[in-house]
Amino acid sequence: MIDEILKNFQEGKTNFDEAKCQLENLLYKDLGFAKIDNLRQRNKGFAEVIYCKSKTIDQISCIVRTMNENGTKNILLSRISKEAADEIKKIDPDAEYSEIANMMVCFKEKQETSGGKILVVCAGTSDLPVAEEAVITAQAMGNEVERLYDVGVAGIHRLLKNTPKLREATVIIAVAGMEGALPSVIGGLTNRPIIAVPTSVGYGANFGGLSALLTMLNSCASGISVVNIDNGFGAGYQASLINNLLKEKNL
Amino acid sequence: MIDEILKNFQEGKTNFDEAKCQLENLLYKDLGFAKIDNLRQRNKGFAEVIYCKSKTIDQISCIVRTMNENGTKNILLSRISKEAADEIKKIDPDAEYSEIANMMVCFKEKQETSGGKILVVCAGTSDLPVAEEAVITAQAMGNEVERLYDVGVAGIHRLLKNTPKLREATVIIAVAGMEGALPSVIGGLTNRPIIAVPTSVGYGANFGGLSALLTMLNSCASGISVVNIDNGFGAGYQASLINNLLKEKNL
Amino acid sequence: MIDEILKNFQEGKTNFDEAKCQLENLLYKDLGFAKIDNLRQRNKGFAEVIYCKSKTIDQISCIVRTMNENGTKNILLSRISKEAADEIKKIDPDAEYSEIANMMVCFKEKQETSGGKILVVCAGTSDLPVAEEAVITAQAMGNEVERLYDVGVAGIHRLLKNTPKLREATVIIAVAGMEGALPSVIGGLTNRPIIAVPTSVGYGANFGGLSALLTMLNSCASGISVVNIDNGFGAGYQASLINNLLKEKNL
Amino acid sequence: MIDEILKNFQEGKTNFDEAKCQLENLLYKDLGFAKIDNLRQRNKGFAEVIYCKSKTIDQISCIVRTMNENGTKNILLSRISKEAADEIKKIDPDAEYSEIANMMVCFKEKQETSGGKILVVCAGTSDLPVAEEAVITAQAMGNEVERLYDVGVAGIHRLLKNTPKLREATVIIAVAGMEGALPSVIGGLTNRPIIAVPTSVGYGANFGGLSALLTMLNSCASGISVVNIDNGFGAGYQASLINNLLKEKNL
Amino acid sequence: MIDEILKNFQEGKTNFDEAKCQLENLLYKDLGFAKIDNLRQRNKGFAEVIYCKSKTIDQISCIVRTMNENGTKNILLSRISKEAADEIKKIDPDAEYSEIANMMVCFKEKQETSGGKILVVCAGTSDLPVAEEAVITAQAMGNEVERLYDVGVAGIHRLLKNTPKLREATVIIAVAGMEGALPSVIGGLTNRPIIAVPTSVGYGANFGGLSALLTMLNSCASGISVVNIDNGFGAGYQASLINNLLKEKNL
Amino acid sequence: MIDEILKNFQEGKTNFDEAKCQLENLLYKDLGFAKIDNLRQRNKGFAEVIYCKSKTIDQISCIVRTMNENGTKNILLSRISKEAADEIKKIDPDAEYSEIANMMVCFKEKQETSGGKILVVCAGTSDLPVAEEAVITAQAMGNEVERLYDVGVAGIHRLLKNTPKLREATVIIAVAGMEGALPSVIGGLTNRPIIAVPTSVGYGANFGGLSALLTMLNSCASGISVVNIDNGFGAGYQASLINNLLKEKNL
Amino acid sequence: MIDEILKNFQEGKTNFDEAKCQLENLLYKDLGFAKIDNLRQRNKGFAEVIYCKSKTIDQISCIVRTMNENGTKNILLSRISKEAADEIKKIDPDAEYSEIANMMVCFKEKQETSGGKILVVCAGTSDLPVAEEAVITAQAMGNEVERLYDVGVAGIHRLLKNTPKLREATVIIAVAGMEGALPSVIGGLTNRPIIAVPTSVGYGANFGGLSALLTMLNSCASGISVVNIDNGFGAGYQASLINNLLKEKNL
Amino acid sequence: MIDEILKNFQEGKTNFDEAKCQLENLLYKDLGFAKIDNLRQRNKGFAEVIYCKSKTIDQISCIVRTMNENGTKNILLSRISKEAADEIKKIDPDAEYSEIANMMVCFKEKQETSGGKILVVCAGTSDLPVAEEAVITAQAMGNEVERLYDVGVAGIHRLLKNTPKLREATVIIAVAGMEGALPSVIGGLTNRPIIAVPTSVGYGANFGGLSALLTMLNSCASGISVVNIDNGFGAGYQASLINNLLKEKNL
Repeated sequence: MIDEILKNFQEGKTNFDEAKCQLENLLYKDLGFAKIDNLRQRNKGFAEVIYCKSKTIDQISCIVRTMNENGTKNILLSRISKEAADEIKKIDPDAEYSEIANMMVCFKEKQETSGGKILVVCAGTSDLPVAEEAVITAQAMGNEVERLYDVGVAGIHRLLKNTPKLREATVIIAVAGMEGALPSVIGGLTNRPIIAVPTSVGYGANFGGLSALLTMLNSCASGISVVNIDNGFGAGYQASLINNLLKEKNL
Repeated sequence: MIDEILKNFQEGKTNFDEAKCQLENLLYKDLGFAKIDNLRQRNKGFAEVIYCKSKTIDQISCIVRTMNENGTKNILLSRISKEAADEIKKIDPDAEYSEIANMMVCFKEKQETSGGKILVVCAGTSDLPVAEEAVITAQAMGNEVERLYDVGVAGIHRLLKNTPKLREATVIIAVAGMEGALPSVIGGLTNRPIIAVPTSVGYGANFGGLSALLTMLNSCASGISVVNIDNGFGAGYQASLINNLLKEKNL
Repeated sequence: MIDEILKNFQEGKTNFDEAKCQLENLLYKDLGFAKIDNLRQRNKGFAEVIYCKSKTIDQISCIVRTMNENGTKNILLSRISKEAADEIKKIDPDAEYSEIANMMVCFKEKQETSGGKILVVCAGTSDLPVAEEAVITAQAMGNEVERLYDVGVAGIHRLLKNTPKLREATVIIAVAGMEGALPSVIGGLTNRPIIAVPTSVGYGANFGGLSALLTMLNSCASGISVVNIDNGFGAGYQASLINNLLKEKNL
Repeated sequence: MIDEILKNFQEGKTNFDEAKCQLENLLYKDLGFAKIDNLRQRNKGFAEVIYCKSKTIDQISCIVRTMNENGTKNILLSRISKEAADEIKKIDPDAEYSEIANMMVCFKEKQETSGGKILVVCAGTSDLPVAEEAVITAQAMGNEVERLYDVGVAGIHRLLKNTPKLREATVIIAVAGMEGALPSVIGGLTNRPIIAVPTSVGYGANFGGLSALLTMLNSCASGISVVNIDNGFGAGYQASLINNLLKEKNL
Repeated sequence: MIDEILKNFQEGKTNFDEAKCQLENLLYKDLGFAKIDNLRQRNKGFAEVIYCKSKTIDQISCIVRTMNENGTKNILLSRISKEAADEIKKIDPDAEYSEIANMMVCFKEKQETSGGKILVVCAGTSDLPVAEEAVITAQAMGNEVERLYDVGVAGIHRLLKNTPKLREATVIIAVAGMEGALPSVIGGLTNRPIIAVPTSVGYGANFGGLSALLTMLNSCASGISVVNIDNGFGAGYQASLINNLLKEKNL
Repeated sequence: MIDEILKNFQEGKTNFDEAKCQLENLLYKDLGFAKIDNLRQRNKGFAEVIYCKSKTIDQISCIVRTMNENGTKNILLSRISKEAADEIKKIDPDAEYSEIANMMVCFKEKQETSGGKILVVCAGTSDLPVAEEAVITAQAMGNEVERLYDVGVAGIHRLLKNTPKLREATVIIAVAGMEGALPSVIGGLTNRPIIAVPTSVGYGANFGGLSALLTMLNSCASGISVVNIDNGFGAGYQASLINNLLKEKNL
Repeated sequence: MIDEILKNFQEGKTNFDEAKCQLENLLYKDLGFAKIDNLRQRNKGFAEVIYCKSKTIDQISCIVRTMNENGTKNILLSRISKEAADEIKKIDPDAEYSEIANMMVCFKEKQETSGGKILVVCAGTSDLPVAEEAVITAQAMGNEVERLYDVGVAGIHRLLKNTPKLREATVIIAVAGMEGALPSVIGGLTNRPIIAVPTSVGYGANFGGLSALLTMLNSCASGISVVNIDNGFGAGYQASLINNLLKEKNL
Repeated sequence: MIDEILKNFQEGKTNFDEAKCQLENLLYKDLGFAKIDNLRQRNKGFAEVIYCKSKTIDQISCIVRTMNENGTKNILLSRISKEAADEIKKIDPDAEYSEIANMMVCFKEKQETSGGKILVVCAGTSDLPVAEEAVITAQAMGNEVERLYDVGVAGIHRLLKNTPKLREATVIIAVAGMEGALPSVIGGLTNRPIIAVPTSVGYGANFGGLSALLTMLNSCASGISVVNIDNGFGAGYQASLINNLLKEKNL
């Protein structure tokens, strides 16, 4: 196997980066590292997801390259740095990078939508990175998404006048830091399922998002479930699973 | 108003309990207590829910009576004691009481189902009260529900041989105490949305369910969201909202 | 001193209970126990407060008796049991006992009010004991108090239609358990100072009121400060200090 | 709208910064970002507040500019860096920057005071940034403020000899880190309402201010409520609401 | 051995209780249970201590009997119930039982004192059980002890007028629940070593004494160290070790 | 002693580094610092371990040098930086450095193995540093080790197909972050003792590894014990003690 | 099936209890309750374990009966009450009940031992219930067990003189509450693997065993792993797995 | 006042630094900052202490200068950086700086010792900074101090052979991180009072020293009290108060 890779490189069939990646792939297998096959199998159906935080730029590039060679589309890269994103753009120049959400989608391909719509609501401007992570995830998985931002409960009228939107969506993602009361209020205004995302925004006794997490778990409104602190990706993923139920005919 | 109530009672139009309840209702309004109208409005669409834990038997009876007089059906009573349930049976003799879940549904009426199915999975026999609370809630809200019990991760094969069930359901409720690993494993076997319910079952460093709660929030599997510890009702409610999406035509 | 007490008792000038109380008072001083003088000095101006939880019925009776003999009026007894209250009624038959708040006021005397009004708002019926503790405290300290109950954020319209009340009050006490979001929403509707009281109402990850406490401390609305969990007395007390500012001419 | 902005810029009616800000404002609306109108509505009456921590210098400048164009006065910028402050000075050269409190007030305008006085007390020199945040907030909202610093409970006489000040103020803000005992002692010396501010000052088992927070919530003195750790702004804001009650005639 | 015990019993040399105790002693050794020798060795010098909470009345009686037979004096029984105390009185009729501290000292014997004095200070009447546990421990270990009770920081003058006492004592034990600020204030008034004892007195966010514990650990005053929550015994024991330093000539 | 060291240095018998180390060794003894003898005695039998985190490069070099002079083999350096490792290579050029585990073994010597095998399993690629720390520790202590990586529970089939490996090993080390469910599932597939290692991998409510730690302590599977968060060394050490039981003849 | 059960009962082939149990078994299967097969499979090899805490006496009896009919031996019942134990004695009159450990073993059968020995060490007499749970578990699984009790670190010599025992055992279980320091000291005296069991014994800031748990996880000694608070069963089970490694020939 | 300062500067009576310091002193008073008088009064008798962490080098210099001018001796500077220490050496060239403890003593003056000796014991080399902080504090306050380092409980014999030292000292300071078991073991070997200092040394579940803190508070040995995490200064200070009791004649 090494022979072949090196020969292809020598004959110019592969360039330096490609050869290096193929060799690293081999190495991974020997070492028992992450395998592309594993990754594929782990992500269920819609899009491939790579969590980039603890990976080197080389590792990310290499995984994207290999996925692409295997024909994978809609590859979602979460928690990716600007530097890594720049490198990935060399592989897929059409890939879009969201600096606010630290996310990127490459080898995007149009997907059939369910007809339903996911509404992403957030309380304050500081919650935007998490909200956008949810938005981009849901979009990459083929959903129509609408944003409703900066409607925190301290100015309740901003939220109230959007009540129709809260009732039309298939599923709602409610993102809030500090006291995290937004999902409770939304829960009183709609009967759509709500996925609540606590953020680590705040200071003092918010203990890195714990205050918002507890608020959401203890909501007196029904129809709310909660994902981990700052886990916009998780919320977008589950909202997509719910919204895509509408696509299926014979459940 | 008091005049009328007393006259009706005197003339035998109402019996003692009914008169007392009507008077208490009045009183509630004077005192600013819970009003039936409020309760109705709070519960969105499917069924009326009364959380009985901090209410006296008299108060519960009274609310049920008034709801029934207003024509309300499918009244769900959660965390209700055997004693209170016995009293309610005098109002609706057809009402069923689940002792394991401390729940009761009265003035039940057949509802149109969505065609989809909610699967309630639980890890051990000690998690049954919470799982049954989810089951009864979902049923009262007009859903077809299937149970898959005692399939904890320490005997993984019991779960694996039920993989088809995990894939056929519209939405899955996964109930587990102790280490709470069940939802993560299910998440790797299906692409249905999973609502995870941590239970307070365990001892030592489980800290009243905190261990299972943290496990579920930190799950490495996607498609999972979490409700409060022991909150079977909340999980059944949200699962119902999701499953009922299938009933709607024009979202 | 003992001589005199015994002689008065012998001569029928004092009855058994009075003599016993006088002797216990002596004893207290010898032992270094709570002294009435101390208690008086501790409570600043308006009313005398006795926290009954860790005191025997005899001790409570004795303190009330002595205070009364010293001419003290408006004695507030907090966390007092039905049994103790019955005993106190023998001393002051006009004293009113609130079973829901476990409070009692004796030797009540009309006080001049400030002209302002304290509004006590609570989220759910389970929060009533704490809310009533605040109400009775504020009333005993000579304030006009208005109640606005069962207006939790999950049914936001109940709160909104009371916006004028929220704006007319001098100071607002907002009582809520579970997720504790009520003060934040009120804070967006009024510019009156709000004293938030978290309650221990809830279950699972509410950790005895910690969730509501953190929510309130992290509120994104301005003008809110917080007292201890279930501390209705503390909120009523501070609200009274604020409301009574209006009485003063030359600050 | 864009046409107009560009034309004004071309014709020299606006300079580069102003044009950029106007365009960003537009963009914000499209994106659903923070809107000035929202901000105004959120802050109730006295002054406008901008929390600068998670905003870029450009965003801050832009909000200040737009507020000013709308005729807003007394704009309070909290948690603002020296760099951002320097930039704001170009917009309002009269704006004062407090480096210790990381605060700035611009377009200051004399406001009618209530006649009452807010006293800000702090325990140690390390608590100064939080205390000053309270002072500047209260001043910007039109209050007379007096400082009493470095009077921690370990040297109780420094506090005692200032008892008259504690009794003359309308409302007291008590700032303390470490064990946070200051408000309890003050509570025993005055019957004015006290707003306690725990600070994160300390080390070891102070857990980022948790020790002081718990101390203050559990105070045995009456008349104390608490704001979030290090939240000098929140204390100043509420103290101002209380102090301004004296301005009103017909409550 | 068993032979001898039974024979003595048969011959009336020992009564039933004594025989039973001797047999249990044997049994203990077989089982590896607590041995008297061990207990003796564990307690260093002054008095023997038996922690009674998890022991049966029989076990306690038996240990006291055996100790007494071995000539042990000043046996201190902590956390002992009224029932057990009554039983012990049959062994030593002179033993005194403190119901408030749940303590008992038997086979008391006059000990030489150091000349120094231990001062036990407590904040409120609810802290008395813990304070008395400290007092009785210190007395049993041969110390002169003085009490100064109900001098909490919310009424600071009660403490201040006792400043001379705070300066004359060899070592001070400061007991307080709720916010636990007492040791800090004392620390500013004296240069004697202070042993602080947090109590579990309080409610809400006091978390079983955690608030007072953290306050004391974070004290801004110097010369303070802390023992476990409600550990009056531990404080009395250490204070005694310190006070007895004065007895020694050649350190 | 100093004389001798300096003379040897002067005469070229020792070079600069050696002389410095000898002098520092002396100094350590004077100061009461770590002594080599102590270190040796602490590590029981197999290999010497030096925890490098809080030591300077000079200190580490010096300890290694001295150990080597005393004839010590298989010196294990944990949490060692690349810089320190480079320096140590000058002392033992054959020493191998693992950058991923921050570990190094020097003066390696073949050891007799027990015949049994330690299996190190890990959930995700982010857990590799901890897993490798366990591997290298176990190898340095003379064990045969096999790796099984990237088999987290969200893709359960990867683990299941390795069931034979789980049954053949003598002892299993199971490393996992996030929800930490891996050991529970393994526990259901084998009857070998399992040492579980929680890692700090994750974000939000994982609280630095607390979630995985609690999961493992609360495992519903039997045969599992747990070491500290990220403590790969501890797991490798204990697994080695267990595996080496097989070497002994006459226990 | 029901027919057969009832007919057998009618014909006297089964008595009332047996018939009831058979019917409940059927019911369990219908309901999805715990199945005996599941239980068997879960427990790996040596003995069957039934955790009795959340089961009724009827359920326990029924499971034991069915297991016995299936030929199961060495059935271990943990956390079983005296009442339930009395009932089980009717099924197996030879079964022994340990009241201190709340454990019972029935249908005991001699098992081949490994030759190695498990040593169970505990710190204080209050730790006995947990220690005995470990002892009985290990014995039921066919191990030779030795006890070493009441050797807490505050009297270090009691432990030191047993050093040979600590070195001869195959594996050591170290049980301790309060500060939990016992395993660390043992770890310095032997190179046998140590399983540490924190107990909930203590008061104040021990937080239900948390203090001992953290102590053991942070031990500076090597060769220690930890099980859940009060989990004597878990420690006995794992120790047995380790000790039984010695039985196997061809690992 | 300003006139005089400037004139002295102009005339060369003071240099630049001195003049600046005098002016800042003035300013401090105006601003309400820390006053030297306050500092003096706070520190009781032996030495002056300046906590340098949150002070600028200028502020520290200035305080030292002023103290010196007032004739203060034995000025202790804690948590002082190397840079600040270099600056202070310009004021007192004889001042010694301990880099390991970040401490400095200036204007040292021989003090009469008590005849007793303080023994500072620490568990591992990583605990040295905290132990040295205690040593230097105690020395600056005029005590004879002896060190006993690197005697952690995992190698118990190192500690045991120093038992005589543990019995000869007047008071013992025991410093330990990780599991913090050292004080418990010492408590079993001596009857001297022990001040325990938990350190933040460790990783994983030590939570910044919490594990060692809880261990020490829950110690089963008597005669131990505890100071804050890493608070070597506090321990040295209290030990000094205790040791100096021996100096006094007429307590």
